[in-house]
Amino acid sequence: MSDSEVFDVIIVGGGPAGLAAGLYAARDRYRTLILEKNGLPGGQIMLTGDIENYPAWEKIAGPDFVERQKRQVQTFGGEIEVGKSVGKLNRRDDGLIELGVNNGKETYLARSVVLAPGSDYRKLGCPGEEELRQAGKVSYCATCDGAFYRDKHVLAVGGGNTAVEDTVYLATRFTKKTTIIHRREEFRAQKVLVEELYRTAEEKDLDIKLPCVLDEIVPTDDGARIDHVRIRNVKTDQVEDLKVDGVFIFVGMIPNTGWLKESLPLDRNGYVPADPLTMKTVMPGVFVAGDCRKSAAMQLATACADGVVAAMQIKEHFRDPDAWGHSTDQPQTGGW
Amino acid sequence: MSDSEVFDVIIVGGGPAGLAAGLYAARDRYRTLILEKNGLPGGQIMLTGDIENYPAWEKIAGPDFVERQKRQVQTFGGEIEVGKSVGKLNRRDDGLIELGVNNGKETYLARSVVLAPGSDYRKLGCPGEEELRQAGKVSYCATCDGAFYRDKHVLAVGGGNTAVEDTVYLATRFTKKTTIIHRREEFRAQKVLVEELYRTAEEKDLDIKLPCVLDEIVPTDDGARIDHVRIRNVKTDQVEDLKVDGVFIFVGMIPNTGWLKESLPLDRNGYVPADPLTMKTVMPGVFVAGDCRKSAAMQLATACADGVVAAMQIKEHFRDPDAWGHSTDQPQTGGW
Repeated sequence: MSDSEVFDVIIVGGGPAGLAAGLYAARDRYRTLILEKNGLPGGQIMLTGDIENYPAWEKIAGPDFVERQKRQVQTFGGEIEVGKSVGKLNRRDDGLIELGVNNGKETYLARSVVLAPGSDYRKLGCPGEEELRQAGKVSYCATCDGAFYRDKHVLAVGGGNTAVEDTVYLATRFTKKTTIIHRREEFRAQKVLVEELYRTAEEKDLDIKLPCVLDEIVPTDDGARIDHVRIRNVKTDQVEDLKVDGVFIFVGMIPNTGWLKESLPLDRNGYVPADPLTMKTVMPGVFVAGDCRKSAAMQLATACADGVVAAMQIKEHFRDPDAWGHSTDQPQTGGW
Repeated sequence: MSDSEVFDVIIVGGGPAGLAAGLYAARDRYRTLILEKNGLPGGQIMLTGDIENYPAWEKIAGPDFVERQKRQVQTFGGEIEVGKSVGKLNRRDDGLIELGVNNGKETYLARSVVLAPGSDYRKLGCPGEEELRQAGKVSYCATCDGAFYRDKHVLAVGGGNTAVEDTVYLATRFTKKTTIIHRREEFRAQKVLVEELYRTAEEKDLDIKLPCVLDEIVPTDDGARIDHVRIRNVKTDQVEDLKVDGVFIFVGMIPNTGWLKESLPLDRNGYVPADPLTMKTVMPGVFVAGDCRKSAAMQLATACADGVVAAMQIKEHFRDPDAWGHSTDQPQTGGW
């Protein structure tokens, strides 16, 4: 492989974090390539209708957001290849990073890599979930979509920390009525959060139904809204229909990092640990950005900022490739 | 002062970081107030013409960006008061944060505070600097504006790390010719950076002129461009005129944090240390966001993300005000 085939930076994943990294790297005139596994870049945000919490965009649809980011990258000469699923990451003895693509059929080489494969929300897989997600009535993120349910009735599903915490958030900040169901007889969340949930149920119109599962989300005839949801008590098998305006499904996220297991340390949930000031992983030349990063805030603005920070570190790395490590004013060393 | 006069969150500074925090806090239906010292919100970015590196905005002017952010905040009921210069920060025994405004003439109370006063670029103060900054030909940020000088001749001014580092960046990534001047006979920057500068001068069209100062930036007759710059050797008093397309002034930044000295620990340059995962300062209830934060990346996207992260932490803080401290998966404790 000749030198001309070595990219300055390859970005794995063409979602907002990857595209933001691509913008900064390409604008710095680095030879930049984004590898996107799907047929289109964008990732998770492509599934989002109205975004109203990205700073300086009062309202924008996910696909429109991605299209703008894509054009920005290309304006500065950044390349985007779709249908490229990266399955292997390896640092060679000469310091170049090798990426195995599409089951090892292709190999790409880069002087630096930004990992931005994102995370997917875990789905329930019940009838109506996908259809009503497309209609914008099934959500997986309270911070993102809670504000759309002011004075409405929503159903929340899940039993972990996020489910309990975000149900309290919905019930106290936005909704008129909230129902939370969980398939077990007890919540899995921390005790302090569960106590707060029950306290909220005394003060607000919040129903807690255990052990219940969501069997079906039934759309209105025009498919635009939820007519009702059907929940079932798994102990008594009793079925109940509820009129709700929205469904929030809080059953976890899956970072798209399974392929990294042999190359990098991951936390127990599969997220990639990184220096939050530089986005450096422990592998020299390899950065991480966006929703697959450990402790990521999981918002569009923060994912983009991750990409920006990672790309800005590339020139530091090229200046002195042997200096990889904690930033000089890391919290660890400097205190904060 | 009655409870109704206590804000859930007061944000000090109406620049991009403060407005982004205001968007998230107001959208969470917290009673949110932004205090801006100037007659208009926006801060430093108001002085920027073309922004082309904010993700999903291919081209936008600073004032337009701010106007959009402002409308976003107000859409969700966030309040913005201008002409309010905060000069004092104090946490009362009851946990509320007290802000002294306009030399103590007014006092504001809040359950939480986001400090986003920003930083200002240090100016040279030479004739033509302000006029040609307005014309977009004098810049203080290479990452922001380097790409506008592809194949052009620019003058860089300064002798510290940023000056030397960013001059190399300009010379190697963008410009056709670069001249750097510094008023002393030696650069103040780290040795490794200075060595790289001299190495770059051998490979690229880069002139290093010491000890020289910039006496004047002379505009073309229409005021739209730089006709030439006049530099002077302070040892020989010899004057030289150079034809350049742009001037980059790298003589430091001044965080707007002097008023915080008695309330919070600042680093030696005046920046506010914070947990980079939560934006928490050491004072319970007080967060920091944007360019005044220690280790901030000083980009529009990263300032906005700071504001988002700080605002998302407010509800965590209200849940358990006594739990203030490092985030559970802080780099210090969990490793990264």
